[in-house]
Amino acid sequence: MKKIGVVLSGCGVRDGSEIHEAVFALMAIDRHGAKAVCMAPNADFPETNHLTMQETGAKRNALVESARIARGNIRDIKDVTAADLDAVVFPGGFGAARNLCDFAMKGAAATAHPEVARLLKEMVAAGKPVGAICIAPALIATVLGKEAAPTLTIGTDADTAAEIGKTGAKHQDCPVTDIVIDHKNKIVSTPAYMLATRISEVNEGIEQCVKEVIAMI
Amino acid sequence: MKKIGVVLSGCGVRDGSEIHEAVFALMAIDRHGAKAVCMAPNADFPETNHLTMQETGAKRNALVESARIARGNIRDIKDVTAADLDAVVFPGGFGAARNLCDFAMKGAAATAHPEVARLLKEMVAAGKPVGAICIAPALIATVLGKEAAPTLTIGTDADTAAEIGKTGAKHQDCPVTDIVIDHKNKIVSTPAYMLATRISEVNEGIEQCVKEVIAMI
Repeated sequence: MKKIGVVLSGCGVRDGSEIHEAVFALMAIDRHGAKAVCMAPNADFPETNHLTMQETGAKRNALVESARIARGNIRDIKDVTAADLDAVVFPGGFGAARNLCDFAMKGAAATAHPEVARLLKEMVAAGKPVGAICIAPALIATVLGKEAAPTLTIGTDADTAAEIGKTGAKHQDCPVTDIVIDHKNKIVSTPAYMLATRISEVNEGIEQCVKEVIAMI
Repeated sequence: MKKIGVVLSGCGVRDGSEIHEAVFALMAIDRHGAKAVCMAPNADFPETNHLTMQETGAKRNALVESARIARGNIRDIKDVTAADLDAVVFPGGFGAARNLCDFAMKGAAATAHPEVARLLKEMVAAGKPVGAICIAPALIATVLGKEAAPTLTIGTDADTAAEIGKTGAKHQDCPVTDIVIDHKNKIVSTPAYMLATRISEVNEGIEQCVKEVIAMI
């Protein structure tokens, strides 16, 4: 059974992984006969109250909160290497741009969480495919922009696309239910909630993204 | 557009709504051309760490945490009446049996959160359909067992089924990808994670449950 890493960053669109995107990635992996290996950094990040959308001043741990999406079946990303996986998928949510890297604050000057950067570089070096959903392509650009010049999409937002372009990555506009494929680097991306107005559109794009990632193995 | 209430109880299988079930209910509602109206009780409940599966001793607010699943688009259940909805769906997760009622602790002697009981009784009195997923049929039995003797399923667990039977409800065994329909009371139930071993099975049962609930409107 193919093993597909799913890198989570907490549990909630504003301070962690976008929950719908993460769940649809898990479902698509299962539907295509592969096994999801959930992981997250064991690190604390600022908490957002999702009712008021205000920062609370408190922190939550990304591994502990991501375990909610993974129903407890999750690993610390520091213990996972490319040898454990056949492919890896990054759901979106603000956590991908704020916890897994600091693109949300620093744009093209961002750096990634060291274990996330390590695993991503290992995967690409091993020729193993990578899926990136919603804002997660900004993380891919942060880690690989300069050295691999990946082609990817976050939908159609011009400012974010320009910032991604400054990393060395190439942004390509894409509608919500479609995907952008970088065949050379084996990177597949889809806009999801960067563009979606309906939850079923999110599922449609992610289904295609994961299907292509698994086909590339 | 038909409005389908989705009653959440927090964000996580052990102390709130089962996240996958809630997301699949939201997707099925959208797929069938209806609009989801998310709601939860504004009340604090004990927090479970989903990495260790231990109680933390702290509490979390069901409305605030459910807002993560609803992406902030959620109402306090006390402000929702049957007049606002065409149908209502209850995802599972331990929160349905521990926060929305106390069936998890008291079995057939359970009582429900007063606003949850009120809304559920209003819906049934108005002839509006109800969907119940996973362990949520235990909540339906808690509120309606005696007066309506609903037929429903939580899968095949004999002890839980027996306890449900003591409320006056009739339990019917059901496989994970199927549903049980109570035509008289317009209640549709499906086992989901009470039986599922794969996330795609959960989606399959919930898709059928929501489809039938919407068809019954």
